[in-house]
Amino acid sequence: METTDRLSINQRTVKNWSIPQLVDQCAAQKIRFVGLWRDKIAQTGLPETLKLLHHSGIRVSSVCRGGFFTAVTPTEREANFEENCRGIEEAATVGAPVLVLVCGGVVNRDLDRSREMVMEGIERLLPVAEKAGVKLGIEPLHPMFTADRSVIVSLSHANSIIERFDSNYLGLVIDVYHVWWDPGVFMEIARASSHILGFHVNDWIVPLPDILNGRGLMGDGVVQIKRLRESVTEAGYRGPIEVEIFNDRLWQFPGADLLRLIKERFLSSV
Amino acid sequence: METTDRLSINQRTVKNWSIPQLVDQCAAQKIRFVGLWRDKIAQTGLPETLKLLHHSGIRVSSVCRGGFFTAVTPTEREANFEENCRGIEEAATVGAPVLVLVCGGVVNRDLDRSREMVMEGIERLLPVAEKAGVKLGIEPLHPMFTADRSVIVSLSHANSIIERFDSNYLGLVIDVYHVWWDPGVFMEIARASSHILGFHVNDWIVPLPDILNGRGLMGDGVVQIKRLRESVTEAGYRGPIEVEIFNDRLWQFPGADLLRLIKERFLSSV
Repeated sequence: METTDRLSINQRTVKNWSIPQLVDQCAAQKIRFVGLWRDKIAQTGLPETLKLLHHSGIRVSSVCRGGFFTAVTPTEREANFEENCRGIEEAATVGAPVLVLVCGGVVNRDLDRSREMVMEGIERLLPVAEKAGVKLGIEPLHPMFTADRSVIVSLSHANSIIERFDSNYLGLVIDVYHVWWDPGVFMEIARASSHILGFHVNDWIVPLPDILNGRGLMGDGVVQIKRLRESVTEAGYRGPIEVEIFNDRLWQFPGADLLRLIKERFLSSV
Repeated sequence: METTDRLSINQRTVKNWSIPQLVDQCAAQKIRFVGLWRDKIAQTGLPETLKLLHHSGIRVSSVCRGGFFTAVTPTEREANFEENCRGIEEAATVGAPVLVLVCGGVVNRDLDRSREMVMEGIERLLPVAEKAGVKLGIEPLHPMFTADRSVIVSLSHANSIIERFDSNYLGLVIDVYHVWWDPGVFMEIARASSHILGFHVNDWIVPLPDILNGRGLMGDGVVQIKRLRESVTEAGYRGPIEVEIFNDRLWQFPGADLLRLIKERFLSSV
C-alpha cells in the first residue's frame, strides 16, 4: 500500500489494550480506523466508547463478532439470537458498517444440520440487521476451525449462501489467513464482487506456532498478501483493511512499537 | 464394519514399532493388512521385510510415502525424483498396489508455481510407476498443511489432476482427517469413483491437541466416518481400510491393547 489511509487496527491484534488505550495509540499514530470487539466495548461501556471515538475522529471499520448460530438446544439458539441482536445494535451505535459473523462449529457431530442452523440463523437475523442499517459479514474461517468455530470454511460456500439470500445486508469478510490456500481463491473473490464487506490481513508463518494464536505479521509468512489485496480491490472493495493478528508473542510487545511495525509492514507487504 | 477383514494398520499408528513387531502383533490378532513406511523398511531391510510378510501371509495395502515434488533447486528436484523411483521400486517389491503421494508444500512463497511443480513431478513419475505396476495415490492433505507439506489440499483439486492425466496408474487416497470438513466431500468422492486407491480412517478430536500429532481414534471425534466409508464404498472402493493415527498419546499405549482397541473401534465406528 502507498499510504496507511485504509489501515484499521483490529482490537485483537492488541488484545491487552482497552478501548481508551487503543484509541489513544491510534490517534497518536494517525491511524484512522479500528475494528472493535464486543467484550472490550462492554468493558469500557458504550457511552464512553462513543465519546472517545467522537473526540479522536477515529472510525470503526467493523464490530467483532456475531454468529455462532449452531447450538444444541433451542434455548441456546434463542439466547444466541438475542446476543446477535445486541451485537447489531452496538455496531449501529458505534457507526460500524458491518458486524462480522463467525458462524459456529459442528454440533451433535452433524455437519449438515449445523450448516442448516447457520442458514436459519442468518435468515432470522437479516431483517434485524436491515432495520438497523448494519451489514452482516460472513467470515469463512480456515477449515481447521470447522469443528469448534465455523462450519463455513470456504469462500465458495460463503458466496453460495450470500447469493441465496441476495440481500444488500449480507456479504463477505475475507481474511487472508483463512483463505490463502484455496485453489479457487481468486475466482471466488471476483465472484463476491460488491458483496465484499471487509478485508483482514496477517500472515501464515512456517512452522505454525499455534492454530488459533500463531498468526504472523504481514511479510513473515508465505501468504501472497499483495496479490490477494489487489484482487479484492479489483473486485471493488475500497474500504478499510484490518490488521487482525492473534499472536501470543506479539501481545507481549510494547504498544507504540507494535503500531509502528504494523504501519511499516502495511506499506511494505500489503 | 461387520468384520475386520478389510482392516489395515498403517505403521504410523504404532510409530514406535519396527516391521517385525508390527507383523508379529498383526498376525497374533489376525489383522490381514499393513501400510508400511519407507523409513521402517530401510530399518529392517527389504529382504527381511519380504520374509516376514511371506511367512505371516500379511499383505501390504500401501507404502508411505512418495511425493514432495516442490523444491527450490533443480538438484533437490532431481534427488526427489530418484527418491520417488526408489519408493516405487520398494512398493513393487513388497507387493503394495499403491505408493501414497504427499505432494509437497509451498516453495518461494509461490503457490501457483509450487502447484505446477507437482504437475511436472507427477508427469515425470507416472511412466516409472506404470512400468513397475505400482499406482500413485495422491493424498490431498488438510489445508492447514498447505505451507509445509502439500499444496494439494482438496478433493476437487486432486480429482482435477487425476482427470487431466487420465491414467490407470494415478488415483486418490482419501483420509477422513484431511477431507471431512469439505462441503463438496460426497460429490468429490463420487466423482473419484474407480480412481480411489485407498481409504484412511481416524478422527478429528475437539479441541485438537496438535495439528500433526493430535488425531483421534475413530469414535472419539466429530467426523462422520461411517457415512464417509459408505460413500467411498458406493463409489466402488472395496480395498483395505487403513487406520492411520498420528497421536502422541496413543504412541505410548502398550501394543496388543492398542490393536484390540483399534479392532473394536473399526467395528463400532467405521
